[in-house]
Amino acid sequence: MHRPTTIITSEHVIYHFDATMEAKWRVKAGDLIEIRCPDGVHGQIRTETDRYKAVDYDHVNDAVGPIFVEGAEPGDRLVVDIRDIQIPQNWGYVLLIPNFGLLKGNIEDAKTKIVAIQDGHVNFGNLRIPLDPCIGTIGVAPIEGRYNTVIPFDHGGNMDTTAIRAGARVHFPVNQVGGLIAMGDAKAVMGDGEVCGTGVGVPINVFARFEIIKGKRLPRPIIETATEWQFVASAETLEAACKVANEDMIAAISRVHGSSWEEAYMLSSLVGNLRISQVVDPLMTVRMAIDKKYLPTID
Amino acid sequence: MHRPTTIITSEHVIYHFDATMEAKWRVKAGDLIEIRCPDGVHGQIRTETDRYKAVDYDHVNDAVGPIFVEGAEPGDRLVVDIRDIQIPQNWGYVLLIPNFGLLKGNIEDAKTKIVAIQDGHVNFGNLRIPLDPCIGTIGVAPIEGRYNTVIPFDHGGNMDTTAIRAGARVHFPVNQVGGLIAMGDAKAVMGDGEVCGTGVGVPINVFARFEIIKGKRLPRPIIETATEWQFVASAETLEAACKVANEDMIAAISRVHGSSWEEAYMLSSLVGNLRISQVVDPLMTVRMAIDKKYLPTID
Repeated sequence: MHRPTTIITSEHVIYHFDATMEAKWRVKAGDLIEIRCPDGVHGQIRTETDRYKAVDYDHVNDAVGPIFVEGAEPGDRLVVDIRDIQIPQNWGYVLLIPNFGLLKGNIEDAKTKIVAIQDGHVNFGNLRIPLDPCIGTIGVAPIEGRYNTVIPFDHGGNMDTTAIRAGARVHFPVNQVGGLIAMGDAKAVMGDGEVCGTGVGVPINVFARFEIIKGKRLPRPIIETATEWQFVASAETLEAACKVANEDMIAAISRVHGSSWEEAYMLSSLVGNLRISQVVDPLMTVRMAIDKKYLPTID
Repeated sequence: MHRPTTIITSEHVIYHFDATMEAKWRVKAGDLIEIRCPDGVHGQIRTETDRYKAVDYDHVNDAVGPIFVEGAEPGDRLVVDIRDIQIPQNWGYVLLIPNFGLLKGNIEDAKTKIVAIQDGHVNFGNLRIPLDPCIGTIGVAPIEGRYNTVIPFDHGGNMDTTAIRAGARVHFPVNQVGGLIAMGDAKAVMGDGEVCGTGVGVPINVFARFEIIKGKRLPRPIIETATEWQFVASAETLEAACKVANEDMIAAISRVHGSSWEEAYMLSSLVGNLRISQVVDPLMTVRMAIDKKYLPTID
């Protein structure tokens, strides 16, 4: 990999994705950028006696940025091409937080588990889990208003989606000049669902290139992998999120194949796969995936 | 594959999984059985002018059976080891049904699409989709009461889960003597979610062996693949189903690893993957999968 032209650090972080937020870095599309992100609790958890008693929306999920990508204008699409994610630390944390997580009714006391990272694996008791780092929070300035970095929505944000990993290209709408991207809240490993409310929280160094696709704005993030398009949606319930993701997929199928809404809906039922991203944030996030052999492009 | 010792046909079908239903066939554990299942609408759809205007709960999702497995007693576990699924027909149907499916608000008129099956693929327009048949409805007699075959619940039923395919072993609770299994409502291909309300509906011939695991009753179905355990749960909402599946996984992890509930919950968050089975039936079905390298057995 080439050396990055710019290294972006946690010198500046945001706790809200805000339509009016100011850029703190400025980069060119195509350049390799390194973004050094703190962990999702900004270093507040170091030992198992450090506990997280409640989600403090003012001091959690800080996202490094905002990054202004030159040439990105409202109506465009901004692609974050994630080339590599490195974990510059040999341990991570898993948290149980009262009133947080899928089974929050069962959590009376906060609990912290520190796990070692060794030889490409997380050690959990005597189990060894291969590292597969993902970016939990990544987004752009919204069209209007502001969203705490804990909240996922159409601007991205806390999507906690395992598919946002090295090799993925994440397509975002450009809502404000420069796009104003920010990211953080990484996990070294995490399952689909993030049921207890966290994966293995770690800092990461992301190596990425930004790409602008002019005039092809999307309503919401779409993840592109080598083989799939994944339409991401966040809503109050999983069912509501499923509907939005399905509608977005149907729109893309209709656009690309020129098929009727009904035919596209049928095809989405045969080869579209609804997947759970997270069920805890507190909006729910799903993605609906389709193999590129059935949908080569989304434009 | 050896020849089946028994061929079970649609001579007898059920429209309810009933605690008091009578067995129509009797088989021995270990024998290879062929079960010939009609399609999910029992042949009512033959052409694109045959339309399905409403889900008729009295004449849909008929399941072939009930099959009494000798030696299966309440408190046991019954495993259906699916060896092969063959499709004895060169076409299938996809339906849009008013007031049914994830985006039912958009469906004004019933619509039927007949698709050809050729050389191991479904032809959908000029797309060729590889056959991957699954059993939509499969279950046992419940502990009490009766469930229409359209409804998925703890006895199984209309789980519409793509993972119930050849090579899978599906573990069921034995609630009544003989287990009383029945199955049908197959799809030649289907995506996770079954969003439009159907996959490609076809008749199938299932080749399966039944196995009894004495005294190891489960609360709900679990799918075993070569590499995974998948804890299946159906409920009014996806969130509620996710909770049940996660609780079942935590219980198995605690049982097998001797870990605390909290540790098991954390592990489930790191390596457990919540997956959507279907969002339309009208209860929702999910499964939570864990690699056997993290959970070699469930007992």
